[in-house]
Amino acid sequence: MSRVRLVITSPLPDELVARIRATDARLDVVHEPDLLAPARHACDHPPPKVDDPAARERWNALLDEAEVLFDFGPLELAPSLAERPQLRWIQATSAGVGKLAERVGLTKSSVAVTTASGVHARPLAEFVLLAMLMFGKDGLRLGREQREHHWELYCGEETGGKTVCVVGLGKIGREVARLARALDARVVGTVRELRDRTPKDLGVERLEPTDQLDELLPDADVLVLAVPHTALTHRILDARRLALLKPGAILVNIARGDVVDEAALVEALRSGRLRGAALDVFEQEPLSPESPLWDLPNVFVSPHSASNVAAENGRIVDLFQENIRRYLEGRPLLNLLDKEQLY
Amino acid sequence: MSRVRLVITSPLPDELVARIRATDARLDVVHEPDLLAPARHACDHPPPKVDDPAARERWNALLDEAEVLFDFGPLELAPSLAERPQLRWIQATSAGVGKLAERVGLTKSSVAVTTASGVHARPLAEFVLLAMLMFGKDGLRLGREQREHHWELYCGEETGGKTVCVVGLGKIGREVARLARALDARVVGTVRELRDRTPKDLGVERLEPTDQLDELLPDADVLVLAVPHTALTHRILDARRLALLKPGAILVNIARGDVVDEAALVEALRSGRLRGAALDVFEQEPLSPESPLWDLPNVFVSPHSASNVAAENGRIVDLFQENIRRYLEGRPLLNLLDKEQLY
Repeated sequence: MSRVRLVITSPLPDELVARIRATDARLDVVHEPDLLAPARHACDHPPPKVDDPAARERWNALLDEAEVLFDFGPLELAPSLAERPQLRWIQATSAGVGKLAERVGLTKSSVAVTTASGVHARPLAEFVLLAMLMFGKDGLRLGREQREHHWELYCGEETGGKTVCVVGLGKIGREVARLARALDARVVGTVRELRDRTPKDLGVERLEPTDQLDELLPDADVLVLAVPHTALTHRILDARRLALLKPGAILVNIARGDVVDEAALVEALRSGRLRGAALDVFEQEPLSPESPLWDLPNVFVSPHSASNVAAENGRIVDLFQENIRRYLEGRPLLNLLDKEQLY
Repeated sequence: MSRVRLVITSPLPDELVARIRATDARLDVVHEPDLLAPARHACDHPPPKVDDPAARERWNALLDEAEVLFDFGPLELAPSLAERPQLRWIQATSAGVGKLAERVGLTKSSVAVTTASGVHARPLAEFVLLAMLMFGKDGLRLGREQREHHWELYCGEETGGKTVCVVGLGKIGREVARLARALDARVVGTVRELRDRTPKDLGVERLEPTDQLDELLPDADVLVLAVPHTALTHRILDARRLALLKPGAILVNIARGDVVDEAALVEALRSGRLRGAALDVFEQEPLSPESPLWDLPNVFVSPHSASNVAAENGRIVDLFQENIRRYLEGRPLLNLLDKEQLY
């Protein structure tokens, strides 16, 4: 087998680059930190620099030579990704890349895309627990009272016995279910297709296909959106379904902003129909400074960082190394993106 | 056996009063809602009204006739509780009543005091989890950025793998340990006396007597105070021990304010030696509007309500009913206060 040119297109610490390089002697790993935008935080994957002509030219040359990419690379040059002569495989650094792959033409190409599905399950599940516990203790109101130096006794709620409905029991949704069960919540949820799977297989008390979600909404104390963004899930939580939810329910969105009708959500939060929402994703990101969501007293805004933890790059590289071995041996890759279902 | 006069001295919903009354036909249950201060929230136990002479007189008469009290009753009349002719037993509505019982002379009397130990373990453990997850996601900073409509990606931390040190593995501390383990934390802790108990017995990886706490501090990512307030635990977390803690540790106090040297704590929070603190209890309550704790950016102030949940009165009454049956049959009461150890 000839050498395999592998280009790393988003920042990684040197020791992780060294680990990738050590995976197999046939690898020819290109890591040019000068071409990468600096990471804004410990586990960031910003797009590479292409703002000067020399960098742009170098990226074009690298993309023409690359057989494997770690991360999508310069998205400004991405519309031609599908036509790069050597490119066979892109390992993404997040789970929800289906719509992006579609936008840059990869779903109609023969280039394999593998996701980082699973890597972010744990920190996202922790965000859900945080939201449940915070609303249970009325934490947003406590924050306001703290700023006013106001002391007032109150009575909170326990998570034990609450019904948590997880829309999308993929790797992330199942980790949410596992941790919610550990806190003695009752967990129900949906998958796109049951395919003979029982509720027990997915760790829930009740399981429905996602298109039967309506049946689960009236009992949900906490609704967790963990679906991929696809044509089927676009604005799956709309005004009609918000009205079906148990009054006073909590929404947690760790999926994508486009799976919610954000205007309808704002209305449900203003009216008190929803007790609150913890949102890590939004229709438009960064969230516009004009969005009413910032100032609603029952909304916790998280800047699409709930999945980020210091340990994640190590886990992505673990997955990538396993996939490199599979690639070199011609075995099926893990986390291969389904180009029709987009996840 | 003659009739037993039982006086309910803090607000309870009618159905719970009915449940108490139904426990045994020999009970003569006095519940005079007009004499009780209204509950300020769903599960409040405010002291009774004694502000007009008639109410005071009625309370004195009730206390003289009572054999059993549900809650301590009017504390203004409490210094003479120990000398009430018929009084044999007081069922308290919280766990940490040792110092109060001492103050009103009950520890030197023959009156039995039973605590509500165990009833509040779950909601207090949830407060600890909330604190761990909130600091893990840098939630206080996110709240500030939300108020400024500021979007900035960041990298958080997971609770999995963190070391949680629980000072005081009583019922509350053990529930904290159980839930922290469910989130894959490493849990260590202390008890006053080991008495042949192994770490496994108490659900921790490492167990020390509380007077050896110093040995656990350098490894603690999260320090949870769950000890009763006694002479031995008074200001157990002082400047010296704060300096022994792992730099950047989180403190969670669900015990009593007096188990911490609050001035030293403020210093450790200002210097950044502690990353943050979630405090449900304070040296002085209500917390003075002048306290620097309100405005520290790394402090979450909870108004001594972390143990309050709507379900708690039902659980206290469950315990009380069991104790009434034991009392009438002359069997040992559950949760009997040790008048030397004060818990």
